[in-house]
Amino acid sequence: MTQQLAVAVLGANGRMGAEAVKAVEAAADMKLVAALGRADSLDQLASSGTRYVVDLTVPESTEANVRFAVEHGMHAVVGTTGWDASRLATLEALLAAKPETGVLIAPNFALGSVLASALAAKASKYFESVEIVELHHPDKVDAPSGTAVRTAQLIAAERAAADVPPSPDATTSERAGARGCDVDGIRVHSVRLRGLVAHQEVLLGGPGEQLTFRHDSFDRASFMPGVLLGLRNVAAHPGLTVGLDGYLDLGF
Amino acid sequence: MTQQLAVAVLGANGRMGAEAVKAVEAAADMKLVAALGRADSLDQLASSGTRYVVDLTVPESTEANVRFAVEHGMHAVVGTTGWDASRLATLEALLAAKPETGVLIAPNFALGSVLASALAAKASKYFESVEIVELHHPDKVDAPSGTAVRTAQLIAAERAAADVPPSPDATTSERAGARGCDVDGIRVHSVRLRGLVAHQEVLLGGPGEQLTFRHDSFDRASFMPGVLLGLRNVAAHPGLTVGLDGYLDLGF
Amino acid sequence: MTQQLAVAVLGANGRMGAEAVKAVEAAADMKLVAALGRADSLDQLASSGTRYVVDLTVPESTEANVRFAVEHGMHAVVGTTGWDASRLATLEALLAAKPETGVLIAPNFALGSVLASALAAKASKYFESVEIVELHHPDKVDAPSGTAVRTAQLIAAERAAADVPPSPDATTSERAGARGCDVDGIRVHSVRLRGLVAHQEVLLGGPGEQLTFRHDSFDRASFMPGVLLGLRNVAAHPGLTVGLDGYLDLGF
Amino acid sequence: MTQQLAVAVLGANGRMGAEAVKAVEAAADMKLVAALGRADSLDQLASSGTRYVVDLTVPESTEANVRFAVEHGMHAVVGTTGWDASRLATLEALLAAKPETGVLIAPNFALGSVLASALAAKASKYFESVEIVELHHPDKVDAPSGTAVRTAQLIAAERAAADVPPSPDATTSERAGARGCDVDGIRVHSVRLRGLVAHQEVLLGGPGEQLTFRHDSFDRASFMPGVLLGLRNVAAHPGLTVGLDGYLDLGF
Repeated sequence: MTQQLAVAVLGANGRMGAEAVKAVEAAADMKLVAALGRADSLDQLASSGTRYVVDLTVPESTEANVRFAVEHGMHAVVGTTGWDASRLATLEALLAAKPETGVLIAPNFALGSVLASALAAKASKYFESVEIVELHHPDKVDAPSGTAVRTAQLIAAERAAADVPPSPDATTSERAGARGCDVDGIRVHSVRLRGLVAHQEVLLGGPGEQLTFRHDSFDRASFMPGVLLGLRNVAAHPGLTVGLDGYLDLGF
Repeated sequence: MTQQLAVAVLGANGRMGAEAVKAVEAAADMKLVAALGRADSLDQLASSGTRYVVDLTVPESTEANVRFAVEHGMHAVVGTTGWDASRLATLEALLAAKPETGVLIAPNFALGSVLASALAAKASKYFESVEIVELHHPDKVDAPSGTAVRTAQLIAAERAAADVPPSPDATTSERAGARGCDVDGIRVHSVRLRGLVAHQEVLLGGPGEQLTFRHDSFDRASFMPGVLLGLRNVAAHPGLTVGLDGYLDLGF
Repeated sequence: MTQQLAVAVLGANGRMGAEAVKAVEAAADMKLVAALGRADSLDQLASSGTRYVVDLTVPESTEANVRFAVEHGMHAVVGTTGWDASRLATLEALLAAKPETGVLIAPNFALGSVLASALAAKASKYFESVEIVELHHPDKVDAPSGTAVRTAQLIAAERAAADVPPSPDATTSERAGARGCDVDGIRVHSVRLRGLVAHQEVLLGGPGEQLTFRHDSFDRASFMPGVLLGLRNVAAHPGLTVGLDGYLDLGF
Repeated sequence: MTQQLAVAVLGANGRMGAEAVKAVEAAADMKLVAALGRADSLDQLASSGTRYVVDLTVPESTEANVRFAVEHGMHAVVGTTGWDASRLATLEALLAAKPETGVLIAPNFALGSVLASALAAKASKYFESVEIVELHHPDKVDAPSGTAVRTAQLIAAERAAADVPPSPDATTSERAGARGCDVDGIRVHSVRLRGLVAHQEVLLGGPGEQLTFRHDSFDRASFMPGVLLGLRNVAAHPGLTVGLDGYLDLGF
């Protein structure tokens, strides 16, 4: 029999953390050994036999959490934001001393979203035109979404590497804002609509044809397959990995 | 046997006119009695027994064409642009003296497009949020499209009449243009993509649900059912009608 | 000051009923005066001053609930299924003796869904082709959905009344089931996909153009605006109304 | 200066062939040296200095055309159907004697379509559910389309290799055909609608999310970028390649 992964969830009282607790408990190949909230001591990780940590806390505590995990030889899967270049460099130095320990820092755990961005970027160099439309609930404060910005950057980099010229655009008369915003030369449009959750379309166009990648996130549950996939693969990827796509078998 | 409608096409050498010639010839209940180009004299209308005129010419000649038709008691279906308020007033005065003659001036003959705008406007008052995304080929010079502007105006009027508050929007941090342009309080986004022709989505959102009206124009052929519907109904609508929706049996 | 509507919810412990309790409590123009479960006596309706009843119970009890309401001069908004022709006839006879009391029986409270079906049917007579694609979660046991069947029947009736011929179809070689099922001459396709809730597309096609009506139900919350709209309008519609579209101001 | 590719088009009077003639003439890195119709002798290929042949003829003549090209050391890009296993085996034997000559046989030259199928198959193993909806004009005689069948087979193979269980489906009551047809365990639905050209959606679903790949072919022009990409790459791929995806740089 395969041994179950001994998993602890940090931030277990948050909305994402609570989902993760349920997902780990429901996974046949995992065992939840600890579920810690803000007030709990990290020492419980060691005493509970934790081998894998899921960090879904806040930017203020994630760095200390991951440091503790790495120092104790526990693998970590991290969904918390706030990992800037300086923090990542410190973490890499720490990991250099623990060559068998893996850390995954993933700004986005929705498999479909990560796949859509990666595949659309890969395909984008075969098309004259590319634009992005992202659609969210109207309580969102930033436009465009962080995911749309990262998708546009990925696409721009892929097209630049293949020497694809900018998307054609004959617009000479524009009502301000009609053509969206510009992210690294890619036009991005942000729709805000009651009832929506989080949705994104990448539109690629060439003579006589269109290729569209659409991702719909209906529910926080959509992040859990990505968290579980991270847990199942982190031990096989020692060192630091940024982005869930590093674990996807897409061949590139 | 029902008598065939005796139809003349003006602007028969243009792209739209050539389509109209084919459509009239293919219609069992119509007979093409004249097809005039720029150089031809309008006198051929009278000599050919024309009872119905389709004007698909240019803004410079459409007014004289329609005047000639009305003065000779011919009904007219007009797709040419350039009919401002002053021209329309002159035409109405002319029609007052010809109480049995009908003129239809239609900025858009695509039935699906006209229906989508009219029905979306009607439905929009039942939803918290509304936005428009229009998508066209990248050789288009204006953004947003005229159709999108008219659709937004229709929606804004319908919502104002029903005292619907503005669509909610919590955006506080926006990259310039991300949220589209504003037409009478409705956000409109313009996508330009090689391969596309003319497409429009009206997105309505309420708690937990979305209603979308999408129209795709793949081909100029899409205008011909509207032209034929205009010809079949213009005699039954004496006086001036602006907009094909005046002939549609939608009950409103 | 306008007086608040005194509303009772029957079936308050069910999933839909619990949503209705929240929605009524949140509505400024309504007051929740009773919330009854299976074990509670209907006499509480009279003692609580109920003027409006929302019935979201089960087919076994809905008829008795509505009879009690009508006999006490309370208006009723009913979302429970099980109202066959015989029950409806009995209810109409009962209402004949209460000319000021209104009852709405609505198989579907999602405004967007009701609107999409009604408007698509209205528009369908202007197009050569029509098909329906409905998409639901994979735990649904029937295919196609009841909503898709009703939509197809509405469309078929509208097209028959306008003498529209059947949608063209040159298929001579079909893998069994590829072309969907046939509902009154309309092709309906049922997709079942993990992650989805309840979605439907009506596709209309003519030469060179397509008009699509898409409705997405993401959440049971989508039914509540329809329940509230029913409550606000039922008193103004004495007698029996079947279908929420009877209360919508679409002009037809 | 890079030398231009010397290209001959076979089947130059057919609809696809005529498009190819225009596309080759418009490509700066190519020179059209011959355009042959049914009655023309293949000897013109040799006399015109042809180095690259595009075969867009008919199943009856494609085999002889390609044989002639290979025997003369010309590379061939073939869009004609009719290449069964026996013909392919004969061709491979012939190519074995010409180790520097390349032949591409591509059942589909639409880049977007080829990309959509390949990428959707790759992504499909990360999702519980997958279904395909293909949409075409109503004059098409087969359902589902050949492209949909091939896409379903690709997906089925990819999921089998990753031990993904069948898509869940609780349907117990089905109107015949509602759930589409079955291609290697994948449900495929075929819509036929006036106005459409050729369109396909691959729908992937997991808990709380959906990923959709949609390809729209609006026009035969959509095949030409694929033909040109084939011509530019065939010399670098000696031997036989079946399927344009063999030339795409997707990393898998």
